[in-house]
Amino acid sequence: MPNFSEGRRVETVEGIAAAVESVEGALVLGTHVDPDHNRSVITFVAPPETVVEAALRAVARAAELIDLREHTGQHPRMGATDVLPFIPLQGVTVEECVGLAHEAGRRIWGELGIPVYFYESAALRPERANLADVRRGGFELLREQIATLPARAPDVGAPRLHESAGACVVGVRPLLVAYNVNLRTNDLGVARRIAARVRERGGGLPRLKALGFELASRGVVQVSMNLTSYAETNVHQAFEAVRAEAEALGVEVLSSEVVGLLPQDALGRAAAHFLRLENYSPDIVLENRIAAAIERKSRSGNRE
Amino acid sequence: MPNFSEGRRVETVEGIAAAVESVEGALVLGTHVDPDHNRSVITFVAPPETVVEAALRAVARAAELIDLREHTGQHPRMGATDVLPFIPLQGVTVEECVGLAHEAGRRIWGELGIPVYFYESAALRPERANLADVRRGGFELLREQIATLPARAPDVGAPRLHESAGACVVGVRPLLVAYNVNLRTNDLGVARRIAARVRERGGGLPRLKALGFELASRGVVQVSMNLTSYAETNVHQAFEAVRAEAEALGVEVLSSEVVGLLPQDALGRAAAHFLRLENYSPDIVLENRIAAAIERKSRSGNRE
Repeated sequence: MPNFSEGRRVETVEGIAAAVESVEGALVLGTHVDPDHNRSVITFVAPPETVVEAALRAVARAAELIDLREHTGQHPRMGATDVLPFIPLQGVTVEECVGLAHEAGRRIWGELGIPVYFYESAALRPERANLADVRRGGFELLREQIATLPARAPDVGAPRLHESAGACVVGVRPLLVAYNVNLRTNDLGVARRIAARVRERGGGLPRLKALGFELASRGVVQVSMNLTSYAETNVHQAFEAVRAEAEALGVEVLSSEVVGLLPQDALGRAAAHFLRLENYSPDIVLENRIAAAIERKSRSGNRE
Repeated sequence: MPNFSEGRRVETVEGIAAAVESVEGALVLGTHVDPDHNRSVITFVAPPETVVEAALRAVARAAELIDLREHTGQHPRMGATDVLPFIPLQGVTVEECVGLAHEAGRRIWGELGIPVYFYESAALRPERANLADVRRGGFELLREQIATLPARAPDVGAPRLHESAGACVVGVRPLLVAYNVNLRTNDLGVARRIAARVRERGGGLPRLKALGFELASRGVVQVSMNLTSYAETNVHQAFEAVRAEAEALGVEVLSSEVVGLLPQDALGRAAAHFLRLENYSPDIVLENRIAAAIERKSRSGNRE
């Protein structure tokens, strides 16, 4: 899910997406172009064999099309391809993904001359696990510090920014489900109090981050959540926790929404919870059985 | 989902399944072998282009391997391949499926000499819409009546049974979700009363059939349901209706179970209901977006 420092010229983002899809097996699932932050995200999937090549072509095209010296926007950034997170989906371990991220990092420096920092699971130094710490001060501050402060030297490459494309932060992070619950009140304090209680940091649910927001246009407030491991805390557990806290405050849950995509299994587990399904597993889903039969038949075909 | 009059010799069912999979694009999702009824079901999927050929090979292999004159079992049956229902899944209309069922019927008579009756959406006479009416008296009674009673003449073929393979009933029916809700009581009357209220025939939910059963081994009772259109009545609506009726009788819902397979979208809709999701659609499911991207890329590849 690479993030690029361009959110206004749509043709630039389309050009990068086309570079991704020029690689065998690489599929763009969606692009999110944000003119307010002048930033965009391209969501693509690819098998381990070609994902690094697809990422490289995206980073290369972004370096051709984006000049960070002319970029403005409130969101902190330090590269044309600002962040390049690899997210393990299926049939690949976090460790294998880290290997791919490191390979991508070496090639970004070697082939494109863009210095690279590794974050989250791909971090080589513990103080770089957190993206915000790596990116502090953005392109402009890093340009001043990269050569002189050893703490800011890149993980791969010489301690100097690419003139126009800056640096790139490459990492591995889990699939994240962004999930909001809306409350029938306009009292922001209520959303903030609930958020503080349900999130992991406040002793709530594991792997759940939460903040309270106002939805001014609708006159309601929202508990906005990120679930970084739906197997540990899924949408239904987040929903139930918010509902319980809201009820204790005499507030009703209005609705909820998923931002972006979520895995089929997250919805299946939620349905199973509410239906008290004894026998839920992804195996009872018709489409999964079809996919498994295709896989089985193609394997047996290959053996013959 | 063809039904075969053999539920004891597993190798016979495996032989038929192998005949299905010998056809390009045909995938066996599962086989259900029922020794009590001496009957089996093979669930397979195939594209419209090859599904008739796959069905033909199954019917031909069953005619080779099964001799109805030696078959015993309580379940009514009149053919080695007793029933051959086509079920539209994706990208195909009921009308197109009826065309495929009729083509299969013509070929079953023309190539195998087995007379064919059409039922449900494929029926050519309204009195044959209901499978039970077509199959009344089974192989033994039909053998006596087929030549002499015009009402029992086949829709395709001469009015005489295939000596060992009997006749075949070919039809088109919707995908059916089999769904049971278990109640924390051993009072069979409760399950029967609830079943009578929630089913369509009793003024309950559309496209829902329901019966009450005892689960003697567990000391509980069950409302056993068939949903013939999950888009009209889905599992969550069935669950909620049973729960409301049970609560009115002071009985608790223990659990529920899906028998066989159900479409991903049925679980998605159920999750969306309970979570009050504002923005549920199959498009928010990651796997569906991947499938759509594969489809889009392969189409654009074909254009080039």
